[in-house]
Amino acid sequence: MAQTPKIRFGFIGCAAIGRRVSRAVALAPNAVLHAVGSRSIDKARAFAAANGFPAAAKVYGSYEAVLDDPEVDAVYLPLPTSLHVRWAVLAASKKKHVLLEKPVALNVAEFDEIIAACESNGVQLMDGTMWMHHPRTLKMKEFLSDVNRFGQLRSIHSNFTFRASANFLENNIRVKPDLDALGALGDAGWYCLRAILWAANYELPKTVIASRNPERNQVGVILACGATLYWEDGKAATFYCSFLSNTSTDITALGTKGTLHVHDFVLPYEEKETSFYAATESGVDEAVTKWVPQPSKRIIETDIPQEALMVNELSRLVADIKFKKAKPEQKWPTISRKTQLVVDAVKTSIDRGFEPVQIQE
Amino acid sequence: MAQTPKIRFGFIGCAAIGRRVSRAVALAPNAVLHAVGSRSIDKARAFAAANGFPAAAKVYGSYEAVLDDPEVDAVYLPLPTSLHVRWAVLAASKKKHVLLEKPVALNVAEFDEIIAACESNGVQLMDGTMWMHHPRTLKMKEFLSDVNRFGQLRSIHSNFTFRASANFLENNIRVKPDLDALGALGDAGWYCLRAILWAANYELPKTVIASRNPERNQVGVILACGATLYWEDGKAATFYCSFLSNTSTDITALGTKGTLHVHDFVLPYEEKETSFYAATESGVDEAVTKWVPQPSKRIIETDIPQEALMVNELSRLVADIKFKKAKPEQKWPTISRKTQLVVDAVKTSIDRGFEPVQIQE
Repeated sequence: MAQTPKIRFGFIGCAAIGRRVSRAVALAPNAVLHAVGSRSIDKARAFAAANGFPAAAKVYGSYEAVLDDPEVDAVYLPLPTSLHVRWAVLAASKKKHVLLEKPVALNVAEFDEIIAACESNGVQLMDGTMWMHHPRTLKMKEFLSDVNRFGQLRSIHSNFTFRASANFLENNIRVKPDLDALGALGDAGWYCLRAILWAANYELPKTVIASRNPERNQVGVILACGATLYWEDGKAATFYCSFLSNTSTDITALGTKGTLHVHDFVLPYEEKETSFYAATESGVDEAVTKWVPQPSKRIIETDIPQEALMVNELSRLVADIKFKKAKPEQKWPTISRKTQLVVDAVKTSIDRGFEPVQIQE
Repeated sequence: MAQTPKIRFGFIGCAAIGRRVSRAVALAPNAVLHAVGSRSIDKARAFAAANGFPAAAKVYGSYEAVLDDPEVDAVYLPLPTSLHVRWAVLAASKKKHVLLEKPVALNVAEFDEIIAACESNGVQLMDGTMWMHHPRTLKMKEFLSDVNRFGQLRSIHSNFTFRASANFLENNIRVKPDLDALGALGDAGWYCLRAILWAANYELPKTVIASRNPERNQVGVILACGATLYWEDGKAATFYCSFLSNTSTDITALGTKGTLHVHDFVLPYEEKETSFYAATESGVDEAVTKWVPQPSKRIIETDIPQEALMVNELSRLVADIKFKKAKPEQKWPTISRKTQLVVDAVKTSIDRGFEPVQIQE
């Protein structure tokens, strides 16, 4: 059986996160680093040299040149969020599949422009939420879906924080209103809201109410915020995201029969061996101090890091489209759009003075 | 040096929690099980026999008889919350020191009746929040107070849930509006709010907003609820308590430099060896998947369980009052009252349709 040719990736821009994704493309068995473009060809050349691009890879002095390269199958777009709609739509129009960093867009209206372009051009859209592709995520989902071990989901809490450096808080695109107006909400909050939706089987909450104390920088960009989300069946979720606290990436999911804890969901503590804590029908002894049974630590191993599994999954879908006339997979843009809808609702609630915002699909 | 005589405890009622506290009194080196009273002398006799009361212990067929026993130094009061004000005030008037189960009262007005009686009679009041007395709690506090390892506190989340049995949900005093009108908020929520106040150095939040989805039973008692708490300096906390989810007792505290996680704060997984997770200046590698440094697991050992340490602390204070003419320790009633104030604020916010409630000391 002939081996399917590898999917050729072109990188649009040289963002720091591209370092991790370059390695991911190099590690993915069905993908290859093909091109990188920057507004500065020197920067593109340095990026290619520093990030393991093969000698034959193309180096371009513009983003357009990557899109005009007929050999590029898929582009990786880590540009500032405000540029996503322009470059993702253009990429789709050039029949390039799109791996787009999160937040996908500044709002769902822009998101819909992007997805419309992808759909009309028959290209796959996937956002860069790497942890979705870790095998641990599947194992955690199996636990949450098990009515005997977890029961019905009642409450979720997620936080993603990191303490940005003084330089980040001064210069990073994520604190600039013209580049990433969603700030910490679009960056760290995206992960929390995805985690909550993931735990809730992507059922959208009905109502979102932002917490009253978002922290902002001098030009109004959100540096820390949170919200409470409500579903019709009575379950609720809270999240907190921040550029101003030490690194934390937690999911706590409480079910009628079980409990799940994970503290490194966005990026595991270690690449090859990861874990989470699962508890079922935990009880406490009536007399002495003891839980019976206690939560168990579940270990999940992977030889391939989550970002390479993400590239692998996208490349698999692209290869199916390219070589087997498959349609783009709806799952990824669908959960991406739901995440964007909730991000929008939190932002709207903040902008409206922390009023409840109803979510409509 | 002559050994100080042991403090003699009288138990008012035979609640299930009394089993744990009987053992605690027996284990505390400075306390002794002296008497138990129930409305049924047979029940009192069975309780004394089942819970290690010495042969010489007194068994009474009424609560009053315990209070009238001149040898009783301190009483343990695990009665339904609605009866606390009556029996705690009466106990104080009989010069008995009071170990009172939480919630201390149905509201702060009742709390203030109790503390006024204790103060005017010179007796110590302590509530039964056992985890406050575990040596781990002190170690966690040292970490939270360390500006170099934890920095400034920005966010706290706490949950305490357990899945009550069908029998509990039908018959337990904690779901009866005339006995424990605060339901899960007064029972499990008390611990979450204490944990939040503890982490915040007992600085009261300025504003409390209850979450919109409290679950109630058919007669209106809260079975699950939550809230967001706001301080003037921008820090915030969320909590969730429930009788309807699997056991969970978590504190997540996020500081500018550090993170604390504990999953068994109310009652440790094991009696003698406990732990929590502390992280300082956590970072992630830019290329490979790895946290550097990773959180560290801190182990704390104790030979004496937390409930016995609680009895020991109360007995120490009572002995100081009894034998050294010391004044009652203000710390315990003070943090107890603050907890009650926040419980009240959550309840008021729920009753007012989830409006913000300002807390005034």
